[in-house]
Amino acid sequence: MSTEIASLGEFGLIDHLTKGIELKNESSKYGIGDDAAVLVYPAGKEVLVSTDLLMEGVHFDLTYVPLKHLGYKAAMVNFSDIYAMNGYPKQITVSLALSKRFSVEDMEELYAGIRLACQQYGVDIIGGDTTSSLTGLAISITCIGEAEKDKVVYRNGAKDTDLICVSGDLGAAYMGLQLLEREKAVFKGEAQAQPDFTGKEYLLERQLKPEARKDIIEKLAAANIVPTAMMDVSDGLSSELMHICSQSKTGCRVYEEHIPIDYQTAVQAEEFNMNLTTCAMNGGEDYELLFTVPISDHEKVSQIEGIRLIGHITKPELGQALITRDGQEFELKAQGWNPLKENEEVSE
Amino acid sequence: MSTEIASLGEFGLIDHLTKGIELKNESSKYGIGDDAAVLVYPAGKEVLVSTDLLMEGVHFDLTYVPLKHLGYKAAMVNFSDIYAMNGYPKQITVSLALSKRFSVEDMEELYAGIRLACQQYGVDIIGGDTTSSLTGLAISITCIGEAEKDKVVYRNGAKDTDLICVSGDLGAAYMGLQLLEREKAVFKGEAQAQPDFTGKEYLLERQLKPEARKDIIEKLAAANIVPTAMMDVSDGLSSELMHICSQSKTGCRVYEEHIPIDYQTAVQAEEFNMNLTTCAMNGGEDYELLFTVPISDHEKVSQIEGIRLIGHITKPELGQALITRDGQEFELKAQGWNPLKENEEVSE
Repeated sequence: MSTEIASLGEFGLIDHLTKGIELKNESSKYGIGDDAAVLVYPAGKEVLVSTDLLMEGVHFDLTYVPLKHLGYKAAMVNFSDIYAMNGYPKQITVSLALSKRFSVEDMEELYAGIRLACQQYGVDIIGGDTTSSLTGLAISITCIGEAEKDKVVYRNGAKDTDLICVSGDLGAAYMGLQLLEREKAVFKGEAQAQPDFTGKEYLLERQLKPEARKDIIEKLAAANIVPTAMMDVSDGLSSELMHICSQSKTGCRVYEEHIPIDYQTAVQAEEFNMNLTTCAMNGGEDYELLFTVPISDHEKVSQIEGIRLIGHITKPELGQALITRDGQEFELKAQGWNPLKENEEVSE
Repeated sequence: MSTEIASLGEFGLIDHLTKGIELKNESSKYGIGDDAAVLVYPAGKEVLVSTDLLMEGVHFDLTYVPLKHLGYKAAMVNFSDIYAMNGYPKQITVSLALSKRFSVEDMEELYAGIRLACQQYGVDIIGGDTTSSLTGLAISITCIGEAEKDKVVYRNGAKDTDLICVSGDLGAAYMGLQLLEREKAVFKGEAQAQPDFTGKEYLLERQLKPEARKDIIEKLAAANIVPTAMMDVSDGLSSELMHICSQSKTGCRVYEEHIPIDYQTAVQAEEFNMNLTTCAMNGGEDYELLFTVPISDHEKVSQIEGIRLIGHITKPELGQALITRDGQEFELKAQGWNPLKENEEVSE
């Protein structure tokens, strides 16, 4: 079925897509349906705001990304930014601009993904804007969250001797993207052909349906750990480490042998004849949490499942370096994903 | 001068555009430079959130809209949504997606307009996203504001016998757009020719550089008036009145003779052979405030300069009607600007 969006109009489409949306968080006082949404945050909470604009053909390719997954991921990357401040996402606004090639059913799919993400992470959809575009799809999501007063974690608090920690594993989302891009190239023109991704499910899931690390934030809180600095790994570990070091005015040492990498990522790197460490350091879109803790928290943080110690913070004059398995030092370089500076992309 | 954006990259461009931005509001704790901005709103305030996504070719035409004006207006339409809740805008996030045809200098112009608007209305730029698009420019702004607890004004509070008020005058922005569209058509292909807009400056200003009505919100507060319902006139008076009535479950009577119209608007409607009342009722983009007050506030509201009483709220069974100068009743119709339902546009 394919219903033309013009048959509903702007207000009709918004009504249709947002039907049945309920506000569940105490801080959400009034949602969709007025000039602005109304929130009430209690004293003792700080309010976090993060925003992202995703453009078709730049941030996503609808030839291999299902709209429902796209909606899920678009919400997730914003949740991830809020967790990266040691907070919890509570509300989002969703703005969409779409060309005539999209149907009402397409937008239902996209919204279903956004709603699923919100449901699973306890976030309310409180507003947005739906309009047309001349070409392609644009998705702009703003996320509002809360953190306990004085528990917000910035990028600039890392100190000499702090331990550098990362959650989950790295490089898989990037490898999933390479896989999808290769299959797209191979199967171009053969719409019926279906690629076989058996044994590579984890890589695809990391690329198409990432999860923000709410669980890690909860575990840190339960262990009474407040990181000294934190951010999420969206552009690649190297790039994020350099942000933390430059904003904290420190150096760092990261050990290749400690970088967490999944088995499927390693197999795929070999199949593609790519350098595994480069993929893990620069791949991006992992949405894992990178953070530093004082060395006195070593025992507590070591006991948390799913967190790996990968190095330590140093004095600034020691620079930012990766130590390879054979003991060589390489200066970190940000080769992360940067849509405005294409010649620096890892994939080029 | 025209500097390629690729020479700066994403982070470089953001740094360049946001250099020197300071946070002036007490509620703005941390702005650009981390995963999320951090706000601290005191107890006793409600937090308002509004968002807009503007697409080139749909919401603006760069053949006659200077980028600086575009930036100013993009910020202003969001401020207007916050005033329309009886609040004050305090922060915005700015996300831009731009194609290769834009230069660093173009983005400086756009940002200069946004910064000017923020400076004049006391709003802090706290974050955003800058990325590339395959074609055209997309601007997504989210505005955060505050209102005194229990002083937020919704669309749904109008009551039978309430007076309907509107600020400023209506239809001029729409007339300015018609004027620009006509000149564009006339001068197509003659890049050197400059149209003569003498005597039509007000119409152009209303279209290109609208002002949000902060002053009206301040005057209402000074007069101790809390409207029962309010919204801003962005889609056209008819459409907005219908929103207030349907959400408040009321009818209304609006009098043609009381609708405020500027002299230049009237002259231009005649020149274009257009129905003046239709333009004022359905033109849109006026960014005036439409609100209702109890009849007991009649004297107080009448004394405020720049506010016109245009009718009153009725019981729902009386419907929503315009009373013409010769006493005829016409049911209100929403013909407002609706980019997703093109056949209903006033201009078609």
